[in-house]
Amino acid sequence: MSLKFDLIKVDGNARRGRVHTAHGDFETPAFMAVGTAATVKALTMDMVRATGTQVILGNTYHLMMRPGGDLVEKMGGLHKFGGWTGPILTDSGGFQVMSLSNLVKMREEGVEFTSHIDGGIKHFLRPEDSVNIQHQLDSNITMVLDECLHLPTTRERAEKNVDMVARWAKRSKDAFVNRAGYGIFGIVQGADYPDLREKSAKQLTEIGFDGYAIGGLAVGEPQETMFRMIATTTPHLPTDKPRYLMGVGTPLDILGAVERGVDMFDCVMPTRAGRTAQAFTRGGTMNMKNARFRTDMAPLDDKCGCPACKLSRAYIHHLVKCNEILGAMLLTQHNLWFYQDLMRDIREHIENGTFAQFKNEFIKTYKGEN
Amino acid sequence: MSLKFDLIKVDGNARRGRVHTAHGDFETPAFMAVGTAATVKALTMDMVRATGTQVILGNTYHLMMRPGGDLVEKMGGLHKFGGWTGPILTDSGGFQVMSLSNLVKMREEGVEFTSHIDGGIKHFLRPEDSVNIQHQLDSNITMVLDECLHLPTTRERAEKNVDMVARWAKRSKDAFVNRAGYGIFGIVQGADYPDLREKSAKQLTEIGFDGYAIGGLAVGEPQETMFRMIATTTPHLPTDKPRYLMGVGTPLDILGAVERGVDMFDCVMPTRAGRTAQAFTRGGTMNMKNARFRTDMAPLDDKCGCPACKLSRAYIHHLVKCNEILGAMLLTQHNLWFYQDLMRDIREHIENGTFAQFKNEFIKTYKGEN
Repeated sequence: MSLKFDLIKVDGNARRGRVHTAHGDFETPAFMAVGTAATVKALTMDMVRATGTQVILGNTYHLMMRPGGDLVEKMGGLHKFGGWTGPILTDSGGFQVMSLSNLVKMREEGVEFTSHIDGGIKHFLRPEDSVNIQHQLDSNITMVLDECLHLPTTRERAEKNVDMVARWAKRSKDAFVNRAGYGIFGIVQGADYPDLREKSAKQLTEIGFDGYAIGGLAVGEPQETMFRMIATTTPHLPTDKPRYLMGVGTPLDILGAVERGVDMFDCVMPTRAGRTAQAFTRGGTMNMKNARFRTDMAPLDDKCGCPACKLSRAYIHHLVKCNEILGAMLLTQHNLWFYQDLMRDIREHIENGTFAQFKNEFIKTYKGEN
Repeated sequence: MSLKFDLIKVDGNARRGRVHTAHGDFETPAFMAVGTAATVKALTMDMVRATGTQVILGNTYHLMMRPGGDLVEKMGGLHKFGGWTGPILTDSGGFQVMSLSNLVKMREEGVEFTSHIDGGIKHFLRPEDSVNIQHQLDSNITMVLDECLHLPTTRERAEKNVDMVARWAKRSKDAFVNRAGYGIFGIVQGADYPDLREKSAKQLTEIGFDGYAIGGLAVGEPQETMFRMIATTTPHLPTDKPRYLMGVGTPLDILGAVERGVDMFDCVMPTRAGRTAQAFTRGGTMNMKNARFRTDMAPLDDKCGCPACKLSRAYIHHLVKCNEILGAMLLTQHNLWFYQDLMRDIREHIENGTFAQFKNEFIKTYKGEN
C-alpha cells in the first residue's frame, strides 16, 4: 500500500486534494470516466484526454470475461493495452457479478456465477481472485470485493452484509501486492442505517486502506437519503485518505457529495447519455432528437470549449436523426467535457474558499431535463 | 466556371497535379473520403484531417433528403454545417436515386423517385435541380446529373444513354452559377463500348467543364474491362483538366487508373471496411474478427503512423469482439490513413519519375485478402 494523497485545502467539508500514482497524479475532487472494456465508449483516448479527464475506471467483471486478466497481463497491463497512460482505478467486479450475471450463490468464501458472454460456464470469484485480476490488469487503484445491497433492505440483512464486507476487505488487503504508486480502497456499506455506516467505516479504517469508498448508494434511494448517508459516513473516515462515492452521479449529486467531503466519483451518466442523444449543458440536459433543434444554429452550450460546441445543435440533431456514429462520439465527448469543466470549477472554488457560492450559482441555472 | 488545375508533372500517363478551390487546394492524384451525410462515418473531421485527407465527397441524395438543401444553405453551407473547412465535391444524387430509392420513372426531363426516408413522398430531380441543390450545399465541385448503367448492357441502351447524358450535361452547365474557386465536372459514360466512351468524352469536352469524370465503371465489370475503358477515354479528355474515376476503388484499382491518367478517386471501401472489422495493410487486408489476432501484439501495419497502430492487433480484435464503437473508429481512421499514405507515395513517385517501379513494388507485397 503506497498511494500518496495530499489534502491541499478544505472549504467547509469540501476538500481539494491530489492523488499520486505510478501513472501520474490526479486532482480531486475528480470525476473518473467509465472505461468499461478498456475503452471509454465512443471515444479515442486522445478524445478522453482532451476533456480534462485525468483518471479512468475499468470494469473488472467485463475485462475478466473479455479479453481476460491473463491476456491483459500478457499485453503489458490495461494502460498499454488500451492506450491510456494516466491513472486507472478498477472496480472489484462484484457489482456487475450481482447485477449483470446469473448469480448462482453468495457464500462466505466468495460468489459463484455464470455469464452469457462465455456461454454459461460456472465462475467463482473470491476477494483474493478479484485482487489478483486487478493486479493482472495493473490497476493503480484496486477496489476490494464487496456485496452491494439494494435499498430498501432489512436491518438484519444490512448487519450481516457489513460484517461480511469487513471480512472480505481484510482478505482483499492481505492478497494485495504492495507497490509504489499502487493502492487498494475499502468500501463502506451499511445500507441506510447510520449506525451501520459508522460501524463499517470504523471496521475498514481499522484494517487500513489507501482510500475509502462509499458503496451501496445511488441504487434507487432518494437523493436526500444518499446525502444523509454520506454525511454520516465521512466524519468516521480518516482525513488524510481520499474518499470515493461509487457510481455517482448527476451534477447536483456531485455538488452535494463534494459539500459533504467526497473526493472521487465515477458514473456512466455522461458517456451513456452521449449514446442516447442527451446533452448536458449549464442550463440542464437536452434531448437532441427533439425537432426544435432542427434549425438551431447555437452550440450545445455556449460556455463549452469542446469540438461539438464549434458546431451547431442543428448539426448534432441531424447526426442523431441519421443514426450517425459521430453523433454519439461528439455528444459523449461534450458530456464528459461538461463534467470535467464542473470538476475544474469545483476545485477552483474550493481553493478560493467559494465553493458554497459556486454551488448555489450552479444550481440556479441548472434546470434539469429540458 | 473557374476551378484552377495545375499539371505539375507527367510520368508515363500518370499525372501529378493540384486543384485550387475557394476552400483551399488539394494535391492529385487525390483520394476523396466519402462523407455521405455531412460526416465521414465514425470519424470527427479532426480525425479525417489527420489521415492526410484533403478533400471530401458529400452525397447530394442523402443530403437533399436529410437535412435538405434549404437547411444546409441556411446553416451557411456544408463546410460550416459539418465542420470541414477544406474542399468538398458533391455527387449529383443520380447514382443513389437509381440504386437506393424506388425509381419511379426516367424521363428526358429528369428522374422521378420515392424514398423510404420521408415515407414515400414523390420527388422529381432534374439536372437543374441537382445543380441548384449542390449550389445550396456550397460544394466546391458540382457533378452533373447523369444516368449510370449497369454492366453488361446493350449497345442500343448505351447509345441512348450517352446522348441523354450529354443533353443533361449541357443543361447542368447552363444551370451552374459561376464563382471563383467553384467548378462543375461532366461525366463520361458509354458502358464498355470504346467508341461510345470516345463519343461521350468528345461531347462533354465540346460543352466544356472544369473537370471530367469517368462514370459507369466499378459496377461489377472485371478490372481489365475497367482499365481498358479508362485507357480508351483519357486520350480524348483535355490534359489541362482533372479526371475523376467515380466510386473507385481497391489500392490496385487506383494504381492501375493512375497509370492510365486518372487524377481523382472516391470510394466507400476504406471507411465501410472500418465498420466491418476489415483492416487495410501493406500486406493486404485482414479481418480483425479472426481469433488468430487475440494475442497478436503487433500493430495493424508496422509502417503506419496512425493512432490505431500505436496499439496492438489484440486490442483491435478485443474491441471488434465486444462491438465497441471505438473499433469502427480506429479501423476507419487507419484504413483512410492507409489510402492517403498510398496517394502520398503515388504523388511522390510521379514527381520522381518512378511511378512504374513503385507500382510494381507495391503489388509484390500487397497480397489481397488475408
